[in-house]
Amino acid sequence: MYEHKAQYYETDQMGVIHHSNYIRWMEEARIYYLDQLGISYKRLEEEGIISPVLEVYGKYRQMVQFGDTVQIDMEIRQFNGIKMTLGYKVMDKESGIVMFSGESKHCFLNAKGIPVSLKKAAPKIYDILMAEYKLSNKEKDKENE
Amino acid sequence: MYEHKAQYYETDQMGVIHHSNYIRWMEEARIYYLDQLGISYKRLEEEGIISPVLEVYGKYRQMVQFGDTVQIDMEIRQFNGIKMTLGYKVMDKESGIVMFSGESKHCFLNAKGIPVSLKKAAPKIYDILMAEYKLSNKEKDKENE
Amino acid sequence: MYEHKAQYYETDQMGVIHHSNYIRWMEEARIYYLDQLGISYKRLEEEGIISPVLEVYGKYRQMVQFGDTVQIDMEIRQFNGIKMTLGYKVMDKESGIVMFSGESKHCFLNAKGIPVSLKKAAPKIYDILMAEYKLSNKEKDKENE
Amino acid sequence: MYEHKAQYYETDQMGVIHHSNYIRWMEEARIYYLDQLGISYKRLEEEGIISPVLEVYGKYRQMVQFGDTVQIDMEIRQFNGIKMTLGYKVMDKESGIVMFSGESKHCFLNAKGIPVSLKKAAPKIYDILMAEYKLSNKEKDKENE
Repeated sequence: MYEHKAQYYETDQMGVIHHSNYIRWMEEARIYYLDQLGISYKRLEEEGIISPVLEVYGKYRQMVQFGDTVQIDMEIRQFNGIKMTLGYKVMDKESGIVMFSGESKHCFLNAKGIPVSLKKAAPKIYDILMAEYKLSNKEKDKENE
Repeated sequence: MYEHKAQYYETDQMGVIHHSNYIRWMEEARIYYLDQLGISYKRLEEEGIISPVLEVYGKYRQMVQFGDTVQIDMEIRQFNGIKMTLGYKVMDKESGIVMFSGESKHCFLNAKGIPVSLKKAAPKIYDILMAEYKLSNKEKDKENE
Repeated sequence: MYEHKAQYYETDQMGVIHHSNYIRWMEEARIYYLDQLGISYKRLEEEGIISPVLEVYGKYRQMVQFGDTVQIDMEIRQFNGIKMTLGYKVMDKESGIVMFSGESKHCFLNAKGIPVSLKKAAPKIYDILMAEYKLSNKEKDKENE
Repeated sequence: MYEHKAQYYETDQMGVIHHSNYIRWMEEARIYYLDQLGISYKRLEEEGIISPVLEVYGKYRQMVQFGDTVQIDMEIRQFNGIKMTLGYKVMDKESGIVMFSGESKHCFLNAKGIPVSLKKAAPKIYDILMAEYKLSNKEKDKENE
């Protein structure tokens, strides 16, 4: 699971991590997550596919402090090759307490900025994400049984 | 209306403003907005009241580029002295096109981190925000007529 | 003169503006300064010339706080078309006190990343910067007389 | 040695890491370095001692790109209990090439913002830093022999 140590420059004068940084941590976790699945976001961009953020949502539950280490758990909530919704859970490493939860929605664009379907544009990556999406949801169904 | 000129350091290698910065612009606009209403967030903090972000949401409609100036329109969507929901519309200054829209939810804490009602803790600020809240919604009702 | 209002998200838990942000303010002031001279950094990049930072130096004299407005005075300390040294003075708008002073060194690269002389690559911009450089130093000589 | 993976949000539209982030990486490395020496900067602050940056200098040698991992080597260049100068070398992990070198100068302040000597205010920390300072310079002398 992705780990991030909260930095001094990420704090604000409230004495805690500034809320905008969690959006950046979501990005860190997302790129790590794709990497673990065998998808290099760097290579994807080099091949002319970018995946901009369409929507972002975050819920601040507990305040993370300088020096704390958080772990970020992720899942694919929706995926059809054209759009993708990712879920995030930021937990305090020591206590396991959920500090923040979030969601981001993405599409896929080619070099000209035109939306593409990964199924055609990058079938291998499509397969990986679809398999992971199904896995994420199977786990959820089990939890809900 | 609040204006922000998109800075070079706010761009990313996609060639546009990085999505996390809109969350910071929301904060800039929020503090300016309160200031226009006669509420100094700085003084509020010095008096021992902070207003952390509980939730944040953003929808990215168009990509803002380095050098563009945006205008940020705001409104109070919900307010009862204990919680407050603010709405944001980030528009390109030149074209008026809405580039991003967002929402943030806040509560009010005292110096000990305990939630307070502004009605008791800061009645003058409560009155200002309540009046503005009613005004925001009256305008909306008119638009919807 | 360039003005910047210190933002909440620029503070750290020391209760003042985090030191890294002054480096960003230097960039803001630099782009504004060039703009005032009739040089759009955006257009320059679009024409295939970038001007990366080679060295940066900053001296922190007083701590800027959230809500303070600073003014940033600039000058060209050295310029020969190949390299350029810029000087910065960040002052508190209200008191005029110098809070920070800095310096940045730059070169000019073409689209292939190869150093170029502005005299050949962009003679009009060369002329503007050379004139400003001479003016900056004439003023200094007068001060020192 | 401290390691940092260059993040997407740290890039700018030049397609490389924005220069201001190296100043932040210096802070990351500094806090890690102190930690390795047995000095928790967090605890130091809680005990009422802060160590603000007085001066900062950076030289950009090669451009770090998104996804690259850098290693940051540090040393104490000067230390007398009242002021401290730290040196930084940011290297590409894979190639070992020095991408950036920097320096930061610090003092020590008590809770009232008054400069203190660590020798009196925090003798144990003084001893650790003085020993490390001597070690840093002994190594250097050997290199120069």
